[in-house]
Parts: sequence; C-alpha cells; structure tokens
Amino acid sequence: MRACVMRSGELVVADVPDPRPEPGQLLVRTLACGICGSDLHFLKHAPSMVDLSDQLTPSLGELALALAPAIDLARDIVMGHEFCAEVLETGPDTSGPPAGTPVVSVPVLLTGTGLRQLAYNNDYPGGFAERMLLSAPLVLPVPNGLEPRLAALTEPLAVGIHAVAVAGVTARNAAAVVGCGPVGLAVISALRIEGVEVIVASDLSPARRALALQLGATEVVDPRQEPLIDAWRRVDAKRELVCFEAVGIPGIVDSLLRDVPPGTQIVVVGVCMEPDTTRPFFASAKELCLRYVFAYTPDEFAQALRAISEGEVDISPMITGEVGLDAMPAAFEDLGRPETHVKILVEPSGA
Amino acid sequence: MRACVMRSGELVVADVPDPRPEPGQLLVRTLACGICGSDLHFLKHAPSMVDLSDQLTPSLGELALALAPAIDLARDIVMGHEFCAEVLETGPDTSGPPAGTPVVSVPVLLTGTGLRQLAYNNDYPGGFAERMLLSAPLVLPVPNGLEPRLAALTEPLAVGIHAVAVAGVTARNAAAVVGCGPVGLAVISALRIEGVEVIVASDLSPARRALALQLGATEVVDPRQEPLIDAWRRVDAKRELVCFEAVGIPGIVDSLLRDVPPGTQIVVVGVCMEPDTTRPFFASAKELCLRYVFAYTPDEFAQALRAISEGEVDISPMITGEVGLDAMPAAFEDLGRPETHVKILVEPSGA
Repeated sequence: MRACVMRSGELVVADVPDPRPEPGQLLVRTLACGICGSDLHFLKHAPSMVDLSDQLTPSLGELALALAPAIDLARDIVMGHEFCAEVLETGPDTSGPPAGTPVVSVPVLLTGTGLRQLAYNNDYPGGFAERMLLSAPLVLPVPNGLEPRLAALTEPLAVGIHAVAVAGVTARNAAAVVGCGPVGLAVISALRIEGVEVIVASDLSPARRALALQLGATEVVDPRQEPLIDAWRRVDAKRELVCFEAVGIPGIVDSLLRDVPPGTQIVVVGVCMEPDTTRPFFASAKELCLRYVFAYTPDEFAQALRAISEGEVDISPMITGEVGLDAMPAAFEDLGRPETHVKILVEPSGA
Repeated sequence: MRACVMRSGELVVADVPDPRPEPGQLLVRTLACGICGSDLHFLKHAPSMVDLSDQLTPSLGELALALAPAIDLARDIVMGHEFCAEVLETGPDTSGPPAGTPVVSVPVLLTGTGLRQLAYNNDYPGGFAERMLLSAPLVLPVPNGLEPRLAALTEPLAVGIHAVAVAGVTARNAAAVVGCGPVGLAVISALRIEGVEVIVASDLSPARRALALQLGATEVVDPRQEPLIDAWRRVDAKRELVCFEAVGIPGIVDSLLRDVPPGTQIVVVGVCMEPDTTRPFFASAKELCLRYVFAYTPDEFAQALRAISEGEVDISPMITGEVGLDAMPAAFEDLGRPETHVKILVEPSGA
C-alpha cells in the first residue's frame, strides 16, 4: 500500500507492507487524517524528542514496559493519529463493526506484547497510509452519517475537552486562551460546550483570530497590541480566570506567571519541546498553579465524537485544506505559515 | 529602642524611633523572633526582589492598593516576621489581651491606609526590634504556658501546614521532600500531623538529614548518593506520591519533572528568586502539576500554634541557636552554613 513515510528525517511517499490484522484487530481504510503540530515537530526534532522520552522512561514504572519498544529513527515511521477510517475486515476470532462501517479510535493499538502508540512507532502505520490496523475494543462507529472529514476532528477536539475537564472549568469561570492554532481552537470549542461566557483569546495571526471568534471566543487580541490578561481585565475582570497556554514555545508561561491574577490556574496544553525559563517568584508570590495536560481519556474522546456528530459544536472551520498523499510533504511546509493554514486533512485512499 | 536594622544593604544594630500604637493596635515587647531564609535573601538581593515585586504589582488588581506603598531601600527596614511578643499596652479605644500576655500574630498590620506586611516595610518595625506594633484583632494569646521560643516557631510551621493542606495530602499518600532546611522540616512536621506514614526527604547536609528523621521523616537520603524519587521507589513505590520542593534554587524543579511518576503533584514551597529553566516536555508527557504555595491562612496559623502548644508536634530541635540583637549580623552569616544551623532565634529584649 502507499503511505507518506518519515524516512531519515524526510517525508517521502512510498510503498510500505500491507498490514495484516491479528486477533482483536481490524484492518481499516483511512478516509481522512489530520496533520497535527506534533507531527510537524516530530519530523523536525525527532532525535531530541526521543532523547527526552528516554530520559523520562525510568519514571514511568510499569507503564514503560507496556509502551516498549522505543522508536528507531533509522527505520520507517508512518505518522497520523487524527483519523477516520472504514472497516475492511476483522482479524481472526475478532468481533467488531461490519465491513463498511466508518470508525474513529484513540490512537492506541493493543498487541500481544503491550500497548503501542499509533503514529509514533516503527511497526504499525498511522493514518498517513492507505490502510491501518485498529483495535476492535477501542473503535467507535461514527454516528449520524457524519462526514469522515469532520469525524477526523474528534481527536483534536478531545484534547480541548480534556484540558477544560482537568481544569474543572464551569460556566461561572472566565477563560483566557493563548494561541489560536488547532489546540487553542479546540480549547475554545470545549469552553463553549461547557457554557463559558467570557473567552478571551490571543494570536499573532488575524486569520486565526477570526477563526477563534467563529468557534466561540468572545474577544480576541493581537498580543503585540494588548496583552491577553489586560484584555480580560478590560472585558471582564470579575469571574475567576482560568488560563490556557496553547502555543508551546518558550517565554509564554513566564509572561503568564507575571500577568495573571493571584491564585490563577494556568493549564499548559501546548507542548513545549525546548527548555523554557521562568521566574518562579511570580508563581510563588501569587500561589499560581501550572497544570500540564496531555491527550485525553477514552471517555473524553467519545464525548468529542458525540459533540461533533450531534452538532453541539461546529469546529469544521478549523479545516483549511484537504490533500492526497502525494501533496503531504508540501502540506507539512504549508502548515508552517499560520496565516494560511490551521488544519490540513489528508485523504490517503483518494477522495 | 534598639533594633537590628537593614540600612543600605547592611545589618547594623542601632537606635530607632519607639513605635506608638494607633487605635486597634497593641504595643508589644518582642520575646523571640526567628531568622527566616527570606530575611537572608532580602538582605542580599533586595533590589532584584523589589524589581520582581514591582513587575507583578499590576497583576494584583485591588490587592496592590491595599499593600501600597512599596518598600524604599534607601530607608531603614527592620525585618523579623516569626515572632512571639508580650503585650505592653493597647492603643487608644482598643480592646485586646491585657499587658503581660504573650501573643503571636500573622505578620500583617492593619492601618488606616491599608494592610502592611510586617518586616518588609519602612514604617513599622518587625521582630528584630525590642518593641513592635501588632493589630489587636489578629493576635493570638499563647496558651498552655508555652515557651516564647517555641511559640515563635508558629509562623514557620504554618508554612508547612499550608503547603500540606493546599496539596490535599492525606494519610494514604506518600511524600517526598526536597530539602531539610526550616521549610522542609516544617513540611515534614505538617505531614506527620496529617498521619502520613511514608516521608522520604533529601538534603546535602548530614546534620539536616538527622533533624529530618527526628521530626518525622521515615527515610532520608543524600541526593548525591541516591536521587530522592529513587529512594521513594525503594521504600514504597505504591502510595500516590506528593512531592514538596523546599529548597528554592534553580534546577531542582527540572530534575523532579524528569523523575517523578506520571500524574504527580509537585508542591513548590521553596521560593526561587532567580530565573529557573525546566524542560516542560517532561511535565506535559506525564501530566504533572506544579502548585506554588506561599505563606498560610490565619486559620492555618492558629492551627500551627495549637499543634505546638498541645504537643501534637515537637519542632523545637529545629532551633540551633539563640542570640541577642548585637549578635544578629554574625547570626545571618552563620545561617549560610547549613552544617551548623537551621533556625536561629533572636531575643531582642535580652532574655
């Protein structure tokens, strides 16, 4: 089958072996798969990401065993973890949805040797391939005739739903969101689902600020014109503020520590891969809380699918491009320009 | 009256004006006052501390008004916020404990122009003076004939009680404490009060590790021999871990982010006055929470006094020296040597 492969740090479109389902697995045809910021980062900085992961492995205890083996960057990797797919066949002795059923799944594969993270491993292709393997117990049929391209947004929305859930945000809070890329927009959508009425967001890009308003932000600012927390003071300054960092570059957390009111919870959703320097005195003097979140639970993933399929939220404006496999290397380039793109979907089997 | 004064960045013993109580205030004679790590830091780094405080002032909103005016480093400052004192007289139209009553108080003074932090201001002397002013509504009489030197430990113990309370620690948790100076020892005492049965602590100093065992740590390690979290894995590795950073120097938080298990709450009690660099990826990948704590509530302060006066905890081994006003500049020097001292008390009125 054809796939967009990460090979020696480059993306190439190539033929790779067809996956064969083991017991408990389903062979599926990928209908749509989003390109995530993590994919861009992994392509550029895989060695340092693998090094950081290796450093924290001893702290994972038994979980580390479940996640072994580590990634070998000298071998092919097929990324893609924001997918919607269609069942082709079930593995031996496996019950699952019948062929033709559109499904989504958390990007995890259960194998006889442990859990494998789909998309960041050498042995099982992710959604940037024509076909992939999913675990029958983990797939969710896509309901209500929802378009695959929208179902593929389940995963990024789940990230936002998880961040808002972990923070314990309620409709009585105000929220400030730094960054209106895919992660920030997912957080904004999740805040709307919770009924939050004051959502102030910042981004350098006018296009992304416009999208943020479309998805439910109540005020957007260019942080070069007005700092985000100043904007919150201007429009609200009353409700208890929860702050979401959705950029993941050095320096942002430090400015939040300086600017947020005492007692504020800062939820760090953006994954910063570089060392970051902060002035902890700001955090101490104001008793701040930095809560780092990552991924989501299976329940939150299911909640995201429900929210999209029942029209509770419309995050489709986030999709700014749809391409085939051959155009993927160019799509990765394009995503570096925030004025043009937010989320590009790949349709590996051809639309 | 005589006082140990911070003047142009130096400590000098000098005569300063006698304080006079306003309505609502009490004039008290200082019986004992501990030297805090913050005092040492303020003496050395006051300009940068004032600069950092100025930077966060806009984020305090109305609280900033209550705390004005700012400190003027060109004028005298009399520090000392861990005190026990004896009532000498009450201000006009003021009801309070009768003369001769030993009292403690949170180090805050209510004045007609707002709240003033005792010990870090130009107008009201702290406990490094023979006499000081306290607010009648805030003082707590020292019960059970408790010695003033032990009552003076109310404030540092309250810091530990607050850290443990904010973390929501229960007897079912295990705790790891980085640093066995006054803050770490107070945390260990507070953990014992909560009934925590696994308390692993680390310090470079053998003397401080011995004190930690005396105050209730169940395992102590030299972090150069065995990393703290490894020691917890050796002795427990089962209970949910809560980690306390009680050192306040750069680099500690980053090593904790790397070493602690997924989902761990790291309570930052040590106040790091310098910029600190961390690798946020560790925190993201393991969904860690950095909870910065500072000071305590009036209830927690009262709880600390009760715990000491009712013998619920004995933190007296923390006291490693007692001096008069004249020996204070030397005591500040001595506290820089962790092998010799933990907590030095001053008895400004002469014992």
